[in-house]
Amino acid sequence: MTESKATNITWHEGRVGRAEREAIVGQKGVLIWFTGLSASGKSTIAFTVEHALVERGQLAYTIDGDNIRHGLNKNLGFSAEDRTENIRRIAEVGKLFVDAGVITCAAFISPYVADRQAARDVIGPKDFIEVYLNPSLAVCEERDPKGLYKKARAGEIPGFTGIDDPYEPPTDPQLTIDTATVTPQAAAAIIIGLLEERGNVPARST
Amino acid sequence: MTESKATNITWHEGRVGRAEREAIVGQKGVLIWFTGLSASGKSTIAFTVEHALVERGQLAYTIDGDNIRHGLNKNLGFSAEDRTENIRRIAEVGKLFVDAGVITCAAFISPYVADRQAARDVIGPKDFIEVYLNPSLAVCEERDPKGLYKKARAGEIPGFTGIDDPYEPPTDPQLTIDTATVTPQAAAAIIIGLLEERGNVPARST
Repeated sequence: MTESKATNITWHEGRVGRAEREAIVGQKGVLIWFTGLSASGKSTIAFTVEHALVERGQLAYTIDGDNIRHGLNKNLGFSAEDRTENIRRIAEVGKLFVDAGVITCAAFISPYVADRQAARDVIGPKDFIEVYLNPSLAVCEERDPKGLYKKARAGEIPGFTGIDDPYEPPTDPQLTIDTATVTPQAAAAIIIGLLEERGNVPARST
Repeated sequence: MTESKATNITWHEGRVGRAEREAIVGQKGVLIWFTGLSASGKSTIAFTVEHALVERGQLAYTIDGDNIRHGLNKNLGFSAEDRTENIRRIAEVGKLFVDAGVITCAAFISPYVADRQAARDVIGPKDFIEVYLNPSLAVCEERDPKGLYKKARAGEIPGFTGIDDPYEPPTDPQLTIDTATVTPQAAAAIIIGLLEERGNVPARST
């Protein structure tokens, strides 16, 4: 360890610990894993959480289909094997973000129990919060914001989760939220309350 | 946009912009891409930069073989095709980190010009700094901290960069540093000076 006169920096060669980064951003990294059918509200709630945290001065980031499927995982399809690899890579990226100290939301259908369990194992259970959004298929199909269910019913999207590909519900999620009756704002408030209780972000006085 | 009484948060459903995250951490995200032979000093200098920045209260994070090859890219080998996919995934992860507002170091041999160009294209040239560490092969082989060159010379590691696999030097790197004569501390100070000039981190008065 030597001192540079010019910049008044202490120089170390070793890797920085996670706790040192977390002290800078005043929070503890965590991965909030949203799972549920298409149109169950995963991205909407993730963005609402992200936005609310950023307005509080906390560093939050959402990974979802928009920035993963067209980037890191653009060479993957929707076979069972590719879905597993899709979730594996997302979990590994999430692990890096958590290590960097970021409050990270991951919003993916992630239909298989085994894949989500593998994600939890990669991240470590202490840093992994599973949030299950469980409105009924009928509710999701009624919403159908991108017209995907309609296309799937017409046979234009084979292997569509909930139609002709299975969704395996979580057996022990930290939170289950029925977005048929809970608004995205209320859902986000519940999640942020949990983050405060866990000490991931400082509690804000009302 | 509605106001929640309980938490005094403004709720938005849309994605947070990069600039809003950058304002929180007081910096502008960037990817510093270190390239060079094995034992040229990539990880050492990346960690030194990371450490110095974190001591200044800036959020920096290094991705390198240690946290990528055993995680995200553990299903890749060292064929030309796998090396290309290795760098592609790293670039996509780097893009997410830059979008999150993090000063990100990537320390990988990345021997092929085309792969580094592809990485630059993924990140965007404005957010990409290529740092070429160019001590001679003889210097790297003399250092050989992990005994890899010795094994490669003995034929135990086929396809080793610099021995029986090519290293293609950058044609137009932002910085070229000969670590045979420049210490890691001095190299890190040069890089941090560049980050200050570019406005990625605030300048620190001496």
